[in-house]
Amino acid sequence: MSQAPSAPASLAARAATVIGRCRELAGMTDVAGETTRLFLSPASRDAETLIGGWICQAGLTAHCDDFGNLRATRRCPHDDAPTLVLFSHIDVAPNSSHFNGSLGVLLAIAAVEQLGATSLPLHIEIIAFSDEEGARFGVPSLSSLAVTGRLRAEHLERADGNGISVADAIRAFGLVPGRIPITCPLTPRTFAAVETRIEPVPGRGQSDSALAVVESILGVSRLSLAFQGQCNHAGTAPMPSRGDALAAAAHWIAEVEHYAANYTQLTATVDGVHTLPATGDFATGTVQTTLEVRHPRDESRHAAVAHLLTKAEAAGTLRGVQVRAAVRSEQSAVPLDRDLTLKLHRAAERAGYDAPPIFSAAGHSAMILAAAVPTAMLLLRSPVELSHVPGDDLRCQDVEAALATLLNLLLHLHPHPKLS
Amino acid sequence: MSQAPSAPASLAARAATVIGRCRELAGMTDVAGETTRLFLSPASRDAETLIGGWICQAGLTAHCDDFGNLRATRRCPHDDAPTLVLFSHIDVAPNSSHFNGSLGVLLAIAAVEQLGATSLPLHIEIIAFSDEEGARFGVPSLSSLAVTGRLRAEHLERADGNGISVADAIRAFGLVPGRIPITCPLTPRTFAAVETRIEPVPGRGQSDSALAVVESILGVSRLSLAFQGQCNHAGTAPMPSRGDALAAAAHWIAEVEHYAANYTQLTATVDGVHTLPATGDFATGTVQTTLEVRHPRDESRHAAVAHLLTKAEAAGTLRGVQVRAAVRSEQSAVPLDRDLTLKLHRAAERAGYDAPPIFSAAGHSAMILAAAVPTAMLLLRSPVELSHVPGDDLRCQDVEAALATLLNLLLHLHPHPKLS
Repeated sequence: MSQAPSAPASLAARAATVIGRCRELAGMTDVAGETTRLFLSPASRDAETLIGGWICQAGLTAHCDDFGNLRATRRCPHDDAPTLVLFSHIDVAPNSSHFNGSLGVLLAIAAVEQLGATSLPLHIEIIAFSDEEGARFGVPSLSSLAVTGRLRAEHLERADGNGISVADAIRAFGLVPGRIPITCPLTPRTFAAVETRIEPVPGRGQSDSALAVVESILGVSRLSLAFQGQCNHAGTAPMPSRGDALAAAAHWIAEVEHYAANYTQLTATVDGVHTLPATGDFATGTVQTTLEVRHPRDESRHAAVAHLLTKAEAAGTLRGVQVRAAVRSEQSAVPLDRDLTLKLHRAAERAGYDAPPIFSAAGHSAMILAAAVPTAMLLLRSPVELSHVPGDDLRCQDVEAALATLLNLLLHLHPHPKLS
Repeated sequence: MSQAPSAPASLAARAATVIGRCRELAGMTDVAGETTRLFLSPASRDAETLIGGWICQAGLTAHCDDFGNLRATRRCPHDDAPTLVLFSHIDVAPNSSHFNGSLGVLLAIAAVEQLGATSLPLHIEIIAFSDEEGARFGVPSLSSLAVTGRLRAEHLERADGNGISVADAIRAFGLVPGRIPITCPLTPRTFAAVETRIEPVPGRGQSDSALAVVESILGVSRLSLAFQGQCNHAGTAPMPSRGDALAAAAHWIAEVEHYAANYTQLTATVDGVHTLPATGDFATGTVQTTLEVRHPRDESRHAAVAHLLTKAEAAGTLRGVQVRAAVRSEQSAVPLDRDLTLKLHRAAERAGYDAPPIFSAAGHSAMILAAAVPTAMLLLRSPVELSHVPGDDLRCQDVEAALATLLNLLLHLHPHPKLS
């Protein structure tokens, strides 16, 4: 590629531009007054058009693969050079953050723009994944499954809340499901993939370093629990023996919080309660609820789940309430590539920043990519410790630090001899 | 009235008939597979037809007033004799009990039938109220308001879930709203009203006496509470400072249960929880919930509410969660008529039963009637301590005890000189 590159700018100015673009992109929304941008929605098309323009300003040409992923490659003069992927995603879960996903895509564009005409021994492909959150079809990271050749026929048949299948949504976007195996796979000789994100890290304070490098993505256990007690009149049911399912569930939820608070690396969350009857004046007969537990070590996570289920059982038994639990999903921890992670650490160090090794506590496309290609993640701290919700924020100097680190990585990354 | 009375039967046989009729009546339902009979529903018409037949077998003639209440009077030869009302209700809240309401109506019919030709110095009016539960229009005891002249124009304008107003529902039942002030009021010179019900009493064991006489109906405070925390990603939000509204609410709900368990006469119930977001993987931002508190003494109830609100505040403060509370309704305790209550005690004693004085912990039409006429309530114990729910039950010998007590009351009740 030999488009005219933009004039170089200071990293601080580029960082400010990245933040400004994140905010502008947040205006591309399916729901006015919030940022919601579902996979293949009209707002996602607007977002891709906007990003395509910024990619063009950076001297590249963007195109859409048949899963709706926006892609652009900065080619090096040697056609057979290996490819490094810089990626994040552009879909936004309902009423979610301005920065989640967008930041990584816009940082990648800014890095390429900053490189200007600098010659590198590698191609750089930017991938803005169309679907990581899974908010429309209920399965996260569909687009990284498509790119790594792991999308299955049943994925394409899944329907959204309006009964529209993934395949139909792809067609309605002007793309061709049958061409996914042709246009979506990673470029041959892709040797590494790097994502940059903003993410609060449990146990890491706001005053710590701007950056961190992910060593491993935490595993998650997700369970459903049902507390089955006795619906009974709130006035006439005797307190000690009323079999109130809500009282049992509440006692247990408080215990979950207390237990997790004692372990720095553990999160345990009861993330929703549904009570029956929903009308007043009754001790609750049934509570449906959930538990999700994350820990860097799979064995510790399993032990925590087992302990918390024993506690649920005990809270029920004490009140004559039956407790049933079912595992909804089990995701083991995913270690990221040691060699690439080390290179990211060194790049931060060269750029003058501390980037301690940490665990990431959220699910990411990186978990899917890591199975196909050496993958690493650079995290920016969250000054307000919010994630995936409106109101999160980031600091300009932190974005500058991330950009400097990415540039250092690009300038010093010599593709592994085995792969290049 | 001089219809041919039925042949007298043993009280045990009559009690068995009452239970059988309750079960038969439970088959008149708006929803197959459960007992649900809303005010002026098709099933309530079927129920009135069935009950009207049983009233006819007892030698009386039933008619419907313009609020849908089924009424029948056993007249004494002296037209100007005072009237005693025996009442309960025939509407059934969704998926509720076979006996609640029905039992009192069918016991009144059985008592009149058992009296046969016995001459009494009073008229006996049976009233089967059409609406006590308030399940259709959201206001309890509308029909006793109609009978005591306290129904207001806005009551008639209230709409059900399908947008049908009370007035329209009355017309659709073939009745005339404009005639409510003419056909509904209590018969002039009504001097007393007695209801019989099955009801578990907090603090009274199942092995205690079959009967009890209500001295007072408990007051109720009903409140709404909102816990406003911070919706945040379940993996990345640090446990100690995540502002999880559900954790705060759960901690408090467990405290409510613990507090109420320490006071025999207090019930405190959190009777429903609504969490936002409803999707998984997030610490909960908002919890909407309720509190209802009952106690025989209004001051004790108010003190309990104040204490529990302080606890909610504290549970929130500890977690950075804001708590807002609003009173939805305040119902003071209603003492029943001392003289009539004493007469009910004596009637039980004469019939050979112990009927200790107790408090009733549920709302009743008796609360409305008590403001218009001396009112008393006889309660049967609940062998399974369930109320207003499917699966409650009663014992034949308890029904026999209630019938014997009612008959003794009728045979010995000399209307008060002031009233007769």
